[in-house]
Amino acid sequence: MPTLNEVARHAGVTPATVSNVLRNRGRVGETTRQRVLEAVAALGYRPHLAARALAEGRAPTLALMVSSIANPFYPEFALAVERAARTSGHFVIICNTNEDPLTGRAYLDQIAGTLSEGVLVTNANLDFADLHTTEARGTPVVLCMWERPHEPPGLPCVAVDFRLAGELAGQHLLALGHRRIGAIVGSKATGVHAARYQGFVDALHAAGAPKGRVKHALDTIQGGYTATRALLDADPTITAIFATNDLPALGAMHAAADLGLSVPGELSVIGITDIQLARESRPALTTVAVPTVEVAGLAVSLLRELIESSYGQAGKAAAPDAVTVPMRISSPPELVVRASTGVPRSP
Amino acid sequence: MPTLNEVARHAGVTPATVSNVLRNRGRVGETTRQRVLEAVAALGYRPHLAARALAEGRAPTLALMVSSIANPFYPEFALAVERAARTSGHFVIICNTNEDPLTGRAYLDQIAGTLSEGVLVTNANLDFADLHTTEARGTPVVLCMWERPHEPPGLPCVAVDFRLAGELAGQHLLALGHRRIGAIVGSKATGVHAARYQGFVDALHAAGAPKGRVKHALDTIQGGYTATRALLDADPTITAIFATNDLPALGAMHAAADLGLSVPGELSVIGITDIQLARESRPALTTVAVPTVEVAGLAVSLLRELIESSYGQAGKAAAPDAVTVPMRISSPPELVVRASTGVPRSP
Repeated sequence: MPTLNEVARHAGVTPATVSNVLRNRGRVGETTRQRVLEAVAALGYRPHLAARALAEGRAPTLALMVSSIANPFYPEFALAVERAARTSGHFVIICNTNEDPLTGRAYLDQIAGTLSEGVLVTNANLDFADLHTTEARGTPVVLCMWERPHEPPGLPCVAVDFRLAGELAGQHLLALGHRRIGAIVGSKATGVHAARYQGFVDALHAAGAPKGRVKHALDTIQGGYTATRALLDADPTITAIFATNDLPALGAMHAAADLGLSVPGELSVIGITDIQLARESRPALTTVAVPTVEVAGLAVSLLRELIESSYGQAGKAAAPDAVTVPMRISSPPELVVRASTGVPRSP
Repeated sequence: MPTLNEVARHAGVTPATVSNVLRNRGRVGETTRQRVLEAVAALGYRPHLAARALAEGRAPTLALMVSSIANPFYPEFALAVERAARTSGHFVIICNTNEDPLTGRAYLDQIAGTLSEGVLVTNANLDFADLHTTEARGTPVVLCMWERPHEPPGLPCVAVDFRLAGELAGQHLLALGHRRIGAIVGSKATGVHAARYQGFVDALHAAGAPKGRVKHALDTIQGGYTATRALLDADPTITAIFATNDLPALGAMHAAADLGLSVPGELSVIGITDIQLARESRPALTTVAVPTVEVAGLAVSLLRELIESSYGQAGKAAAPDAVTVPMRISSPPELVVRASTGVPRSP
């Protein structure tokens, strides 16, 4: 592997000039530029990823498409993705689709799929046809948090067993003795949180417990707040709230505070994910932790493999073969017991 | 590889219309748009934006450099920037520097300053020389939240009178009757929050109140938590905490909860900024609100003006003239009284 210095000697220029040419920087005359590029070609020099990408018209970036930058999970995940990407010299640009598939398409078409070597997608709100189009143009795509490992999405992905997360949450509340549990699902009935709720229902079913009330809500603190007020209005005998995500669980605790209900004395609350606010809330939130950092690492390394193997280019994407679509599965979610769950109050 | 002209011919439109459709710009009827997209698909046209952007030195994006994506202020600000940018058809790519000037330089050199038409910077952690270099290469830079309107930074900026924010916070606590106030500054003594603290000190001074204890802390919930414990350990007679940012103020409330101190009955807490969590905390946080949405709008419109006027290119940046460096000043910060402040407890 020739060095930058050897290229410089071969071209009869300084190393700084070689660097400038490869990075499209500084003032370099066209003759000199040509001489440097010929030396690069003659010696088979492979410049640093970043420089090469710019020389080739590609930036050394991975794009991270997030559905809602205002949801604190995504910034946390973005940080983990950045750390993983940095190990291969990639920079991460974050594109916020604001839960809008059309905005997502525009980002894919104009930014992520064009300026990046690969695209990480953290949500299922994007139109899969758009993602396939991006793949077909030669930019690999990886779904980062596929919620149903047993139903592969037909795109490369990192899957997390979110059904199990719901089941663990349900089992924890049942083990404490709760039988009247309200559920808050942070998506539509058939939406992204369906598997989480199914796991919770599976746990109730296995224990012979009644299914209880369920509210579908916005996946926000405010959504959980409103849903909790509605659940407790409809059934004041509820002793615990299961939320499919930490944000609505935090909203449930706020609702309890406003109703003068102590947590966990009068109302237990459990979420899923373990975002930083779960640790920082008072009382600290019991939750089922998803291995965020591990998922970010798996997603970046899968994406890098796909970039290096030119996956999705040419024929493959035109005739996708389900068997060849890679899926990585993360470690299972784990219950993290903190201060927001306890035995139910006496009736 | 088909050209833009071939796509235009195939669709029976002008090349400019194809370009508009691909860039989501201009007014193009839905039928025409569909015809163009069908022609793009039929011919397998790949609008190599990256190559063109590099060739032109411009991409239809604005880069938003944030110092810490984990700080919830930045995602909120990013949302406001995106809304403002969308009105001119710009997409926003978010680059997280993680408070590291070297990472910031790499983003400026390799991404933001290369692939974007302009760069918005939300923090002062970046090396100004790097920002001037980006300007000199023809990519305008706007500082979004300059904290000292009376000391222009020598770069185009939107300034917010953060000294006034600190003063308003101090005046509020004084008006309630507090005289023993602990201060938490979320930066070093000479750091970005210095003006906020100065305003607080000005308020105390004007009222003839003692200056009180101050802790410099990390600008996080945990930083505020630790600082509050230390302040109350050192002086249990403190009746109120002023924090230069909402996150450490929220940490102060958590510390109070863990110490069994009621807020505001036994400890009043006030922050600055008015992030969403300030509204959502229990008790809701009294704070001095910064006009985030307005600042985002001013920053984007200033950046667009600079892009259109080719500010910073050629001679101007080489010999910057302080008089010509534009600064926009936002509306003044405003006190928002919520539930975390009240009259001091009796001694």
